[in-house]
Amino acid sequence: MKINRLALAALLVTTASLQAHAKTPVVNHAINEAEVLTAQQNWCKALLDISAVHQRDGVAAATALAAKVIDSAYGYQFGAVLFKPTLTVAPQTFRTDRAGALAYFVGGNPSYPNDTGFALKGWKKCDVDNAAVYISGDVAMTMGNVRFTGPDGTVTTVDKTWSFAKDDAGQLRIVVHHSSLPYAAR
Amino acid sequence: MKINRLALAALLVTTASLQAHAKTPVVNHAINEAEVLTAQQNWCKALLDISAVHQRDGVAAATALAAKVIDSAYGYQFGAVLFKPTLTVAPQTFRTDRAGALAYFVGGNPSYPNDTGFALKGWKKCDVDNAAVYISGDVAMTMGNVRFTGPDGTVTTVDKTWSFAKDDAGQLRIVVHHSSLPYAAR
Amino acid sequence: MKINRLALAALLVTTASLQAHAKTPVVNHAINEAEVLTAQQNWCKALLDISAVHQRDGVAAATALAAKVIDSAYGYQFGAVLFKPTLTVAPQTFRTDRAGALAYFVGGNPSYPNDTGFALKGWKKCDVDNAAVYISGDVAMTMGNVRFTGPDGTVTTVDKTWSFAKDDAGQLRIVVHHSSLPYAAR
Amino acid sequence: MKINRLALAALLVTTASLQAHAKTPVVNHAINEAEVLTAQQNWCKALLDISAVHQRDGVAAATALAAKVIDSAYGYQFGAVLFKPTLTVAPQTFRTDRAGALAYFVGGNPSYPNDTGFALKGWKKCDVDNAAVYISGDVAMTMGNVRFTGPDGTVTTVDKTWSFAKDDAGQLRIVVHHSSLPYAAR
Repeated sequence: MKINRLALAALLVTTASLQAHAKTPVVNHAINEAEVLTAQQNWCKALLDISAVHQRDGVAAATALAAKVIDSAYGYQFGAVLFKPTLTVAPQTFRTDRAGALAYFVGGNPSYPNDTGFALKGWKKCDVDNAAVYISGDVAMTMGNVRFTGPDGTVTTVDKTWSFAKDDAGQLRIVVHHSSLPYAAR
Repeated sequence: MKINRLALAALLVTTASLQAHAKTPVVNHAINEAEVLTAQQNWCKALLDISAVHQRDGVAAATALAAKVIDSAYGYQFGAVLFKPTLTVAPQTFRTDRAGALAYFVGGNPSYPNDTGFALKGWKKCDVDNAAVYISGDVAMTMGNVRFTGPDGTVTTVDKTWSFAKDDAGQLRIVVHHSSLPYAAR
Repeated sequence: MKINRLALAALLVTTASLQAHAKTPVVNHAINEAEVLTAQQNWCKALLDISAVHQRDGVAAATALAAKVIDSAYGYQFGAVLFKPTLTVAPQTFRTDRAGALAYFVGGNPSYPNDTGFALKGWKKCDVDNAAVYISGDVAMTMGNVRFTGPDGTVTTVDKTWSFAKDDAGQLRIVVHHSSLPYAAR
Repeated sequence: MKINRLALAALLVTTASLQAHAKTPVVNHAINEAEVLTAQQNWCKALLDISAVHQRDGVAAATALAAKVIDSAYGYQFGAVLFKPTLTVAPQTFRTDRAGALAYFVGGNPSYPNDTGFALKGWKKCDVDNAAVYISGDVAMTMGNVRFTGPDGTVTTVDKTWSFAKDDAGQLRIVVHHSSLPYAAR
């Protein structure tokens, strides 16, 4: 029943959209759910790509790719990103600037001595399992698990929150990224 | 070609939506184009309804319906609406409160002596022809012509701008409404 | 008195921002009221500037300045602007693209034979009198009167609605502009 | 000193708003930084209040207060909240509905057997230290540390991300809340 209603809604949307687009310019800064799911998939794909480039071409090539990914998928050009990576510790827990993000993903920055390069760990698979999604117009937030499969098949699960903002060019950019290992009594 | 691309996009959205909805709660405050077009149609329908009720049941019934329409379709509960009706003049040009809007649509308010009741004019048809649409997340703006067909078949064309905001309950409400007759050299 | 209030507001905003920035990076895409009032003043100032340049340096210089103003103060780079100028008529009422806006302000475009150049009329003064303001996060809408004083001291009053969106660089841009002469029984 | 800054900011906001309201109605759905910092302080205060009520009046009174806090400070009425509390584990990591949030704060719900009541732990102090703030119109996001001082003076530090949305009544509500203990090599 719910599916029927959804399918009907989709049909109406399609028809209306076609008719309107034929007639009038539409500027749309709103984010839809498909864009959010695609941006998540793109993040996973970028991580696997960096891992693959690292194995094939070495750390310099991986670093160049990671820099490109950060510049296209994150919102550092807005001034700061609220980024808490999975494995960082105080006083370098939060990576609000681009240098801190790059150090986390590929290491090699003496200012971040604890960073070993999360994207260099030979990841083979990256799956997103959303617990909930909140779309607030031109910002969309997701929370759920992301599962990383390593080179030996071991799966690492993290709890992850993302917020994506749509930039003036219509592209989604990560403006919040909080990742943490599941709680374990210590 | 454009239509094919749009149809494909719609299909992808539909599939993704169904899959996601089956899994996760999605709170969505963004406005899509179909919602905007529907809200415009609802405004037209409400105007024709008030006209019809007026002719059948008299001005008191029309006033009751107009009050209901204003409360459900405008955003006066947010504090004010930016409403410039077609036929108002200074110093009562702008109807930023509910009483001023009701007076414009159905007249009968001695504080607004120039108001004769725009919705009581026996409108038979109301067509929207958008020139452009701008969706900014949880606010959507439209500009174009609206054509009103009167009881004798005469068509009145106005230039109209609307802004719709999505309220907490997910309903679109008019927060800006600027209507004017086309410019004519005087 | 009004200027004092604006200057005070600007000062307060600056102070608060500086204090916060000293502690934490703050990315702020929200629009505040002072920014809206400033954007309106800037629009008026740009109109007077174009008029002055026209009188002093001729139409080519005025056109160059108008193009610069449109590119910095309007949002045509987002894809379209919902612009209904005061004096346009069908079928060229709505100027959703940049060429149509420029033609309206400075004329001289054979594709728009009715345009005589609104900004070339020797305006000496431009005052904004808001009836209401609606700020919806990163979009702000205003409605009210704008009064233009011509070279002979005659005042022209228009009913005007603007919507401003904040772009990625933090600048307000006009995305809706509906201007109309007051209603007069014909 | 920090309190002074906040008080000043609040005062300035109030003054500016009053001055504007005297002239024109202003509907403002944008969030400013002072509102964000206040909402964070309110969350801390609510936690300490629940702890105090628990010690003085018992768990039933604490539960009643916690329910009230959840209903006024979170956005469950929008459909779901993206809430990952500090101490939850799979398969109950994410508390997207109200019952799950209440169970986390005060325990006593047999459906959540691992919940011992985070708000019942006798907290004496709660300090927020923001790493960065991102305000996106009517949604604001913060990331940083929150430090909880327990009854014996021990301090627990968490990494915390919040997103606040402004509801139709103008109140900030938590729509995202991701809290995690700092990473520790295991």
